[in-house]
Amino acid sequence: MNDTLTIEEVMTGIGRAAKDAAAELAFAPAEAKARALEAAADAVWAARADIIAANAEDLKFGEDKGLTPAMMDRLKLDETRIKGIVDSLRAIAAQKDPVGEVIAEWEQPTGLKIRRVRTPLGVVGVIYESRPNVTADAGALCLKAGNAVILRGGSESFHSSRAIHACLLEGLRAAGLPEAAIQLVPTRDRAAVSEMLTATDYIDVIVPRGGKGLVGLVQREARVPVFAHLEGIVHIYIDKAADPVKALDVVLNAKTRRTGICGAVECLLIHRDVVATIGQGVLRALAEKGVEVRGDAELSKLPGISAAEEDDWGREYLDSIVAARVVDDVDDAIAYIRKHSSSHTEGVITEDPEVAERFFQRVDSAILMWNASTQFADGGEFGMGAEIGIATGKMHARGPVGAEQLTSFKYLVTGDGTTRA
Amino acid sequence: MNDTLTIEEVMTGIGRAAKDAAAELAFAPAEAKARALEAAADAVWAARADIIAANAEDLKFGEDKGLTPAMMDRLKLDETRIKGIVDSLRAIAAQKDPVGEVIAEWEQPTGLKIRRVRTPLGVVGVIYESRPNVTADAGALCLKAGNAVILRGGSESFHSSRAIHACLLEGLRAAGLPEAAIQLVPTRDRAAVSEMLTATDYIDVIVPRGGKGLVGLVQREARVPVFAHLEGIVHIYIDKAADPVKALDVVLNAKTRRTGICGAVECLLIHRDVVATIGQGVLRALAEKGVEVRGDAELSKLPGISAAEEDDWGREYLDSIVAARVVDDVDDAIAYIRKHSSSHTEGVITEDPEVAERFFQRVDSAILMWNASTQFADGGEFGMGAEIGIATGKMHARGPVGAEQLTSFKYLVTGDGTTRA
Repeated sequence: MNDTLTIEEVMTGIGRAAKDAAAELAFAPAEAKARALEAAADAVWAARADIIAANAEDLKFGEDKGLTPAMMDRLKLDETRIKGIVDSLRAIAAQKDPVGEVIAEWEQPTGLKIRRVRTPLGVVGVIYESRPNVTADAGALCLKAGNAVILRGGSESFHSSRAIHACLLEGLRAAGLPEAAIQLVPTRDRAAVSEMLTATDYIDVIVPRGGKGLVGLVQREARVPVFAHLEGIVHIYIDKAADPVKALDVVLNAKTRRTGICGAVECLLIHRDVVATIGQGVLRALAEKGVEVRGDAELSKLPGISAAEEDDWGREYLDSIVAARVVDDVDDAIAYIRKHSSSHTEGVITEDPEVAERFFQRVDSAILMWNASTQFADGGEFGMGAEIGIATGKMHARGPVGAEQLTSFKYLVTGDGTTRA
Repeated sequence: MNDTLTIEEVMTGIGRAAKDAAAELAFAPAEAKARALEAAADAVWAARADIIAANAEDLKFGEDKGLTPAMMDRLKLDETRIKGIVDSLRAIAAQKDPVGEVIAEWEQPTGLKIRRVRTPLGVVGVIYESRPNVTADAGALCLKAGNAVILRGGSESFHSSRAIHACLLEGLRAAGLPEAAIQLVPTRDRAAVSEMLTATDYIDVIVPRGGKGLVGLVQREARVPVFAHLEGIVHIYIDKAADPVKALDVVLNAKTRRTGICGAVECLLIHRDVVATIGQGVLRALAEKGVEVRGDAELSKLPGISAAEEDDWGREYLDSIVAARVVDDVDDAIAYIRKHSSSHTEGVITEDPEVAERFFQRVDSAILMWNASTQFADGGEFGMGAEIGIATGKMHARGPVGAEQLTSFKYLVTGDGTTRA
């Protein structure tokens, strides 16, 4: 970064370059984009020693900064994780190219032929935190969708992201695509984030991916449209008609398979009639797996269950903790969820299709699961390939955000000198 | 309106009521919504004398305020126009209900069955200007899509909108739907608009429909997502391979059929090789129809063509005026459009499919027309029924915004005690 420029000047330069690159990418052949991603995958694998060395610098910085073990773990790269990055790049390269797809096609009585065709969005700004692999995933998905992308990683992963970004540039060069297609903000200065959030002239959409601090900043400052990406305050409702085995399997998996992901369940709602049967069984099994259960007044009378505080309701733990409370019926559960969820993912366990149908119809979250673990809330598990994240808003993208969700469309109308009466 | 409340309190009350109504509307039966719209149509027709009387008050206010004849015309209601409102309500009632539609459905190797199902957006805020019929159209389309709507019409149409709104409420009551489904802001105070633009707790999306002043206000103040609705700075490129008759027919229709609509062409780009032939013919025909042609340095040498000023490029006249300039080829035209258009609608006249294809691929506007009049840029002409407007942004909705564009979706996932490995 040229130190004589202000952050604003640097970001304006990046924005302009991205917009020019986007105009070119919009009609880049599918083969060129796939080739760039394949070449980037090769480059990442070839440079794995350099990437690990760069990562070591970040780990040192993180240690000095006193990052938590969980954050240090997210930051760390080793050969296995780099293999994961390479595989993801190749998988995105192999996906169907979304741009130019005819989404709908019809003819009007006037003789006009109308096609609705998928197009890139333009320039995507991705603001993320410590995971360096997001550099590759987000860069690759945006390129696949024909978008230019401006990546702003967390300061903790600065060196790792830069090393990975260098490989993405190699890929772009190998395919003859503009290098400004994937830009990494070359400064740790936080002011760059504010510049991105207000760059309505250059950025079409911001994809934030991070914790509460980032989400709050985005909500306060963003003038550019944002794919809302809130936490996963995930609820599972255990109905009185739940199958005990399914309830046990699904809840244990939803909480303990991985506690740190956004699809992990954070709150159980148990129908009053089955508290003493299925409920107790599930809660005991969770406790045996080392999960701390924080119950409402009623449940906390049970052995091994602590009493929840007020701020345990509607809370994302991302840890081996779960809240639990008694509800009167599915409507009570729905009302509670409406109040406390982040509209990410919720589940219902029941053998009664009417209860499931009511839950599906009346809970307004991006993903609803019936007799299935909420940990399936993932673009890969949906068959959509890699994802930048799970959108919790209702505008444009909702649920897993893959290449297709990073596109828009336009109408192509063909006449024959046709005029309107 | 209760005068002891502040605007903020009034708007918060409206927002809360809308949110509650939206929760109920989300699962309102399709039949109930259709019945409400039919009953509203009956009520509008029955109340036509009252509506015309209310409109007379607005016309008086408009006259005192010194509105232009064009604005007075937009404001005016007569029995024919009220018949138009009634027909539009019935047409929306008869449309397919979008809510609950299964957009996609597939099964994963895990056994999970995944459905992507259309849902309402929630609460829509519509901010519009003088046309009173928007009250009915916007209210009806939002209801059809299962959304609650907060309507804020221009102060000029205050009485007319109120009279039409009363009929919509009759329809809601007749169908047993909550009256807060369609609310009209009960004050002329402009502060209500600012409240709506920042009501992120209550409003999911703002649909602005109006001129530059409103669009600017929305761009500056909106914290709620917005369906960008810019002006229609519409270009038509006449290629060297244009058919002379099609060029003449299409351009004349695109400019003169109705000059005041957003699909009216505002700027002609003429290939250098056909200026003396097709170009001159088209420009002469426009002049004969009373259109003022403002040409670039080259074209303004021709008889009857005045010289364009700098601010004529990228300008929406909505009047019997057109700008015209010479371009070297389709790429020159595309570059010019990229710089000056509002991404609404552009057209190309050519018999060369490669030129049309290049234009379709490289111009990034919501609607592109090949050998067809740009005045077809209209939801009705697209077979989409009524529309709230034409969205010029690329997020969520683009082009004509009808009931379907006012929806979101969610994923419904069915397992059988399925857990993630």
